[in-house]
Amino acid sequence: QISKLLEKSIKNSDEAEDEIATKTRQKAKKRVMTNDKNAPTMQQKNRPLVRVHDLTVAKADQLLWVRARVHTSRAKGKQCFLVLRQQQFNVQALVAVGDRASKQMVKFAANITKESIVDVEAVVRRVEQKIESCSQQDVELHIERIFVISQAEPRLPLQLDDAVRPDGEGEEEGRATVNQDTRLDNRVIDLRTTTSQAIFRLQSGVCQLFRDTLTNKGFVEIQTPKIISAASEGGANVFTVSYFKTSAYLAQSPQLYKQMCICADFDKVFCVGPVFRAEDSNTHRHLTEFVGLDIEMAFNYHYHEVIESITDTMVQIFKGLRDNFQTEIQTVNKQFPSEPFKFLEPTLRLEFTEGVAMLREAGVEMGDEEDLSTPNEKLLGRLVKEKYDTDFYVLDKYPLAVRPFYTMPDPTDRKYSNSYDMFMRGEEILSGAQRIHDAQLLTERATHHQIDLEKIKAYIDSFRFGAPPHGGGGIGLERVCMLYLGLHNVRQTSMFPRDPKRLTP
Amino acid sequence: QISKLLEKSIKNSDEAEDEIATKTRQKAKKRVMTNDKNAPTMQQKNRPLVRVHDLTVAKADQLLWVRARVHTSRAKGKQCFLVLRQQQFNVQALVAVGDRASKQMVKFAANITKESIVDVEAVVRRVEQKIESCSQQDVELHIERIFVISQAEPRLPLQLDDAVRPDGEGEEEGRATVNQDTRLDNRVIDLRTTTSQAIFRLQSGVCQLFRDTLTNKGFVEIQTPKIISAASEGGANVFTVSYFKTSAYLAQSPQLYKQMCICADFDKVFCVGPVFRAEDSNTHRHLTEFVGLDIEMAFNYHYHEVIESITDTMVQIFKGLRDNFQTEIQTVNKQFPSEPFKFLEPTLRLEFTEGVAMLREAGVEMGDEEDLSTPNEKLLGRLVKEKYDTDFYVLDKYPLAVRPFYTMPDPTDRKYSNSYDMFMRGEEILSGAQRIHDAQLLTERATHHQIDLEKIKAYIDSFRFGAPPHGGGGIGLERVCMLYLGLHNVRQTSMFPRDPKRLTP
Repeated sequence: QISKLLEKSIKNSDEAEDEIATKTRQKAKKRVMTNDKNAPTMQQKNRPLVRVHDLTVAKADQLLWVRARVHTSRAKGKQCFLVLRQQQFNVQALVAVGDRASKQMVKFAANITKESIVDVEAVVRRVEQKIESCSQQDVELHIERIFVISQAEPRLPLQLDDAVRPDGEGEEEGRATVNQDTRLDNRVIDLRTTTSQAIFRLQSGVCQLFRDTLTNKGFVEIQTPKIISAASEGGANVFTVSYFKTSAYLAQSPQLYKQMCICADFDKVFCVGPVFRAEDSNTHRHLTEFVGLDIEMAFNYHYHEVIESITDTMVQIFKGLRDNFQTEIQTVNKQFPSEPFKFLEPTLRLEFTEGVAMLREAGVEMGDEEDLSTPNEKLLGRLVKEKYDTDFYVLDKYPLAVRPFYTMPDPTDRKYSNSYDMFMRGEEILSGAQRIHDAQLLTERATHHQIDLEKIKAYIDSFRFGAPPHGGGGIGLERVCMLYLGLHNVRQTSMFPRDPKRLTP
Repeated sequence: QISKLLEKSIKNSDEAEDEIATKTRQKAKKRVMTNDKNAPTMQQKNRPLVRVHDLTVAKADQLLWVRARVHTSRAKGKQCFLVLRQQQFNVQALVAVGDRASKQMVKFAANITKESIVDVEAVVRRVEQKIESCSQQDVELHIERIFVISQAEPRLPLQLDDAVRPDGEGEEEGRATVNQDTRLDNRVIDLRTTTSQAIFRLQSGVCQLFRDTLTNKGFVEIQTPKIISAASEGGANVFTVSYFKTSAYLAQSPQLYKQMCICADFDKVFCVGPVFRAEDSNTHRHLTEFVGLDIEMAFNYHYHEVIESITDTMVQIFKGLRDNFQTEIQTVNKQFPSEPFKFLEPTLRLEFTEGVAMLREAGVEMGDEEDLSTPNEKLLGRLVKEKYDTDFYVLDKYPLAVRPFYTMPDPTDRKYSNSYDMFMRGEEILSGAQRIHDAQLLTERATHHQIDLEKIKAYIDSFRFGAPPHGGGGIGLERVCMLYLGLHNVRQTSMFPRDPKRLTP
């Protein structure tokens, strides 16, 4: 039943201890080119591997092992120059005919396909002239032995060098860039670029900063269900799931569950998880599945306590990125130049009416209780940037009419509500509000919005047994990363994006 | 359009600044019972609230404000004793007819429904005899003013005191315990118990320890899609989603995406997120949606490097819980007594054949290539505990026949594979393996398992452009919490559990 290849592999294996002897490995063994007939077999376990990042002049003249990808190879007479890459780091390596390498070995090295993974034994040599094209500029590797660990197919669907080329650069020389669908169709290769590596390391940092800040503030992390029995807001834009003999839905937000946790005395909670929107929007900023960074908290006397907690969390994220992810930011900027992200402390808070006044002053015609269109949001972002020099601000007190049923009305002006959006570079990254915490008022507002009360019974019932005033909001992780880095498509900051037209890979 | 109640609320509101004036609040205002006619209104914003936990003798004789739930109230002549609760902390409070309180105020206090949220202004008094029934044993509050912030309905679907009573206790006195469905149907109240508060604070700790340990080891956090285009392992036990004009599935694990990240040079990754299993299993340990703590990493020479990373992560979690969550563990133990969780360093690793030998010695009859049944897993857990005194161990080298198609065969013995399960108190919490990283071998194994190659094309293609040897595993968060605490049903460690029969709340 086992494949013949594996059988062969097992037969050939001369060390019972070997656990990664596979076909590929066996292939590699046969191809080993080395002038040392007593070379240890590939199966040797305790051969320490040095990271490319650690190849510096401190290691000059040492003989050591490195595992890396062949980024490029170029044969030139009796020599073959390789660039070996490991994540965002790379080093030049050389195989040259001489004491340590045969002609065949040079030829073998030159034929290793790009993106193959190799183990090399090499001496680290200091170079006289800095190697500008590599991250390790002061040394190169003089290879004595080379083994192929995993061989890449010769034809790559995209070239990494093309994939990191800034738009427009090298156009005259006929150099290609890679379009987005090709990238996404071949995401495993596209993610290897320095730009992608930097984007997703920074994204990992955003999540960590978000959680650490909130944990320090006394928030508890919760896990909320994604399969739910009823669509929360009337059933629009919701994905349906077959659930045994019945139907269920995918949660459009964890909000109702966060609120239940507040009613259950958790006081301050956060969660990080997928959010699903069955919206047929094919824009640069919509995904059908994205990662929500969600916050909910009880407050004492004013929902601005909630706004302050959220804006302070955002400021901590911005500072953490600025202070700890400069390398990643610079790497992304090389391909996608953008202005550094600006923010104020404390965060600028404008009221909706102030925003409308600024827009009207700029010639926009709009009603008092009209929501902001996307172009108007962007325009307002530019006006705010000009006036206040910030890329991050809060727009507070939205018209009640444009917000969901559970939004707390403003007790002093029935036209408005205790709700807010937050913007980065003129695009919305968070929507939030004080929630109604009284079952009777909630029932009335739901009825007003023509929501089937039976479907939200469990939600409303949560407030019948004592509920503190509370509020919160949900942040889109991909948007935060996109806008912080000044990118222009949310698919660049989603590892495996989902939109109405894309479900793979 | 706005509800009449709200209108009334707005009309009555005498402070324009007030942002939480709601019907409930207004109700409370009308009911305020205080002998101080010049009491500030409820809307006062900057009244500092003291946490119940901070009510100690250090605050004796201070007049201060506390917001808490009415846990119990008991009128006794001219006095009313309340227990005020805030999460796991509670304090005794007293309203007594005298200088500061009228008869009506005592009556009002006595009539406040249990679980209502109140603000009280009170003097902290040292008590002579410790109050054994409260967490704050050395002080009580002498209430001067009391306001209802949110009123609970008078009939609670379950009593908190019943919900924390250990099984069997107080049975003679006819005291009730609460059955699981009642708990889950009224989860918002059940989650308020000291036991639930402890369980989910500990769960939050498990996630944090998991991530912090891996981040320290150089792992990167990734976000993987939950909506996928093809069921990975032949389509059994998978939920179907309507996706615009087509169909999609809910991911049964993030494994394929974790692996793609390894092929994309992220080297070591982890993710925390929901996992979906459309399995019609109504057992104590199955959920249709649970939280997966997932790990995947490239290794150098042996998949045991992966096992070591995972077991070390588990050990760090166990140590972190033991050292930082003793209060939570003790709280849960009061209701659900269990032996302290034992583990070894380094973690015990047994081979599958050793496990089978132990079982056979204990009288179990089973074939060499047969998987362990659940009862046999439990029995083996007991045998291992007796012999090695550990509640945590790894069973390594499972028969190839019982593992998924992508599992790397053992190169030295075709009957077995480089795969492992991990167990806590005799129940499986993790399943993992070295994965096949060669496209051709993977294709053959998939074909052998009769999997439609077209459906896993994107997955197989990920390995065509150079892939390092790698392995990983997925841990069930709810199971880890259940077994660490010695609980007996995974629904106790899932905030809003999903099973074939439960989709709400």
